[in-house]
Amino acid sequence: MTGSIPQTMIAVGFSEPGGPEVLRPENIPVPVPGPDEILIKVAFAGVNRPDVVQREGKYPPPPGASPIPGLEVSGTVADVGKGVPREMLGQEICALVSGGGYAEYCLAKAGHCLPVPEGLPLDQAAALPETLFTVWHNVFERGYASEGETMLVHGGTSGIGTMAAMLGALFGIKVIVTCGSDEKCAAALRIGAAHAINYRTHDFVEEVLALTDGAGVELVLDMVAGDYVTRNLKCLAEDGRHVTIAVQGGVKAQINMAQVMTRRHTLTGSTLRPRSDAFKTLLADEIQRNVWDLVADGDLRPIMDRRFPLSEAKAAHARMEAGDHIGKIVLEVV
Amino acid sequence: MTGSIPQTMIAVGFSEPGGPEVLRPENIPVPVPGPDEILIKVAFAGVNRPDVVQREGKYPPPPGASPIPGLEVSGTVADVGKGVPREMLGQEICALVSGGGYAEYCLAKAGHCLPVPEGLPLDQAAALPETLFTVWHNVFERGYASEGETMLVHGGTSGIGTMAAMLGALFGIKVIVTCGSDEKCAAALRIGAAHAINYRTHDFVEEVLALTDGAGVELVLDMVAGDYVTRNLKCLAEDGRHVTIAVQGGVKAQINMAQVMTRRHTLTGSTLRPRSDAFKTLLADEIQRNVWDLVADGDLRPIMDRRFPLSEAKAAHARMEAGDHIGKIVLEVV
Repeated sequence: MTGSIPQTMIAVGFSEPGGPEVLRPENIPVPVPGPDEILIKVAFAGVNRPDVVQREGKYPPPPGASPIPGLEVSGTVADVGKGVPREMLGQEICALVSGGGYAEYCLAKAGHCLPVPEGLPLDQAAALPETLFTVWHNVFERGYASEGETMLVHGGTSGIGTMAAMLGALFGIKVIVTCGSDEKCAAALRIGAAHAINYRTHDFVEEVLALTDGAGVELVLDMVAGDYVTRNLKCLAEDGRHVTIAVQGGVKAQINMAQVMTRRHTLTGSTLRPRSDAFKTLLADEIQRNVWDLVADGDLRPIMDRRFPLSEAKAAHARMEAGDHIGKIVLEVV
Repeated sequence: MTGSIPQTMIAVGFSEPGGPEVLRPENIPVPVPGPDEILIKVAFAGVNRPDVVQREGKYPPPPGASPIPGLEVSGTVADVGKGVPREMLGQEICALVSGGGYAEYCLAKAGHCLPVPEGLPLDQAAALPETLFTVWHNVFERGYASEGETMLVHGGTSGIGTMAAMLGALFGIKVIVTCGSDEKCAAALRIGAAHAINYRTHDFVEEVLALTDGAGVELVLDMVAGDYVTRNLKCLAEDGRHVTIAVQGGVKAQINMAQVMTRRHTLTGSTLRPRSDAFKTLLADEIQRNVWDLVADGDLRPIMDRRFPLSEAKAAHARMEAGDHIGKIVLEVV
């Protein structure tokens, strides 16, 4: 296959941090897969909030990662490195990548790929890895969510929020979401949320306590942090878990440690990108075993917002920053 | 046995919250064991920090608990309630109790008792339950301490601190303690701490980082809370756990949620007294299986500070509040 791979490709990066307009197509060498790596001819690349934060210069790529944004892709295996079975060549896969997704070709660890099941469109395949890996790990492995519990998720129509609502519904967890408009609340309910609170017109703490008969939720999946943490903890039941996966509302939180202690709360959080390759491989295995059949059967499909051509990545970022999207934004590469 | 049990007994309580002087002996009825309960003829009662906080009016007994202070006792089984084997009568036991320890007789759940092994003096037996149950649960079950890890504990010569240092040494965990004087640091090292930092003359954050080659500790057992939390988190390694069991330094903590998230910290905590009877029974079982042989063999014995007669409970509290004690203070009842 390597014969048909060009020397250079188009990728969308930036030379100085800034607004969406700093994103521009550039011509760069096609990367060569090292041991245990594959080269993907990218069909679609998912757009995620961390890409925006990276473009703003606030989330530098971890050592060894591509400076090009893009944390998830779908496409076809174009080349394989040492230790990767050649049978993978030509397969349609989607992958979690540590960067470089906004490009015609992208490297991935073979262990971080999942096969695209028959009937799953490639745009949807590209929209799965980042939110699915993130939600699965943080909700079930860090947050210990279990059947019959209730979870609060802010940003109910975001990529993460929609995935959390859908996974929750599939695994017996009642998901309460907050959204910024009645329209988004209605969308969240259609997607799988059990309840949706318009945080602009209602106090979400009061609403959550009313919805749970005063007991609170067992889990908060927190993407806001900042002064939301105090309010989140008021929503949290005894023995409840608070898992932070983004800090869009600021980093400083004021916490009453006596409450943490007497109510036996647990606060934790994680980011996916800097985790070890071995960790991500284990997580991919776990998702393949526990979730991938649901994707293949059509029971779990990402909520799609809009597609943009790769060259219009700046418009995709502008849309995400405007906050009007519902579900996932992807870039079409081919 | 019930024939030899008097109708009334001396207990030490208080009618109004206040300083140590509010504690005074009173004559109250001897309690009668209900189902699954035993009546203990108390030999010694351990004195713990929560007793002091209760006396100050800041830690009311949970519903159903005796208003008399005292969370741990040793003694002889004087009577048994329904469902408790009569073979327990006359046995020497120590017990975790939800209150009422400062008295000639005290009720305990049969499941919250441990037998006093041959060779364990009763004053030491009374000094074990509260710290052993608390440290075991919070260090191993909430804090997931495992062999080869390093733990930071403030108050290295307190009852909790000495128990943490000893248990750590027995289970392969390196314990770094902080103390308020060089004398206390020396005592902590004799007791089992791997390192002792005088927090009055050294910055404990710098010292901990130096002792761990900059990596930090895997676990902080926090009895201070307040503004110590920010500093504790600076001592905490990636994936580290911060377990709060007291808030002697205040309740408000300022936390950087981005740090919690990117370093995958976990903050939690608990108090023992309000936990369910079933939970405490499970914990007692676990301690009997995992730790009690070490007590019987003499490998784990509480560090004893001083004994006071029951009638001098106020002097015992004054000593604890002065902070000069090293190890456990107990009240001698018989």
